[in-house]
Amino acid sequence: MHAAQIEKLIEKFERLPGIGHKSAERIAFYLLENMTKDEVSDMASTMLGAKDSIHFCSVCQNLTDTDPCKICSSHKRDKSVICVVESPEDVSAIENTNEYNGLYHVLHGALSPMDGIGPDDIKINELLLRLTSGGVSEVIMATNPTVSGTATAVYISKLLAPFDVKVTRIAHGIPIGSDLEYADKMTLIKALEGRQTM
Amino acid sequence: MHAAQIEKLIEKFERLPGIGHKSAERIAFYLLENMTKDEVSDMASTMLGAKDSIHFCSVCQNLTDTDPCKICSSHKRDKSVICVVESPEDVSAIENTNEYNGLYHVLHGALSPMDGIGPDDIKINELLLRLTSGGVSEVIMATNPTVSGTATAVYISKLLAPFDVKVTRIAHGIPIGSDLEYADKMTLIKALEGRQTM
Repeated sequence: MHAAQIEKLIEKFERLPGIGHKSAERIAFYLLENMTKDEVSDMASTMLGAKDSIHFCSVCQNLTDTDPCKICSSHKRDKSVICVVESPEDVSAIENTNEYNGLYHVLHGALSPMDGIGPDDIKINELLLRLTSGGVSEVIMATNPTVSGTATAVYISKLLAPFDVKVTRIAHGIPIGSDLEYADKMTLIKALEGRQTM
Repeated sequence: MHAAQIEKLIEKFERLPGIGHKSAERIAFYLLENMTKDEVSDMASTMLGAKDSIHFCSVCQNLTDTDPCKICSSHKRDKSVICVVESPEDVSAIENTNEYNGLYHVLHGALSPMDGIGPDDIKINELLLRLTSGGVSEVIMATNPTVSGTATAVYISKLLAPFDVKVTRIAHGIPIGSDLEYADKMTLIKALEGRQTM
């Protein structure tokens, strides 16, 4: 019973990740009732501007507005270490720790034969290319601890065997601040397997 | 550490209702990674198009792309009943029941002296104007069961006293499908007060 234009607007917001029908409706009404025309037009042009100017870094494949990206071109980063992640969001998460000073490589996905995603569908070749240029001593596999993330880590580590490079995997275990009794079985197993001398 | 354009995009999404920083980041990356340029441009123009063409119905004040809106101009609706609500979302909620066949009046807010919202800040005068033209036999106050919603209902019902019109308030009580033991005190009191003969 909404006007067609409102329905169409709700539909657009509904397609965004994490937004259900109710939230999309709320956002649409907010846009129509509470935002000025200038604000809406500003938002629309920000979307178009970002889409136009943001592309993949030719080195690490992360989203960037420069090429190479700020991290790849920074003189303060340790270029001998590459941390391999599935998505740009993972780069943000690690950057937010302020504890990692190496470079990244964004795969833009993980191997998933069931979904038809093979080695050529993610940025694996681009990673191999970086290693052939040399200067890299360690590759940290920081793909997600899921079936496809782990399979991707194993697959890439095998491809890297011919190179003179150490391949490591981020630790899995009980998250800090959480309770042991609420940890799932696999996490507990990983936590026990990965135990370290105190 | 995001590119400036990405930061700006995240910021825009973050301003929408119900979207926190994490969700905004997720939506921004989705837009940059998973949406085509055409899809983004289509979404931007839908936003601008809706903002341009949607306005308040001159009769009921609901959002509409025609004037009067489809409900006000429908020959199938009972024009002798007006249901007064706070927002266009409330109209959708009631329309979705398929049980109400009268007209609406959208106040676009509720009286809230603490927030500086007085009678002239919401569409009360527009409601009075509708009643002066006659033909209305009942006004259903369906503002929210909050302090300001109830105050608004009481205020309007007093203003309507001079008119030859029945003013009613929607029932408050235990929601269908919920459990009595989880109902809050006020809801229980309202449910008892509003008890009806079986």
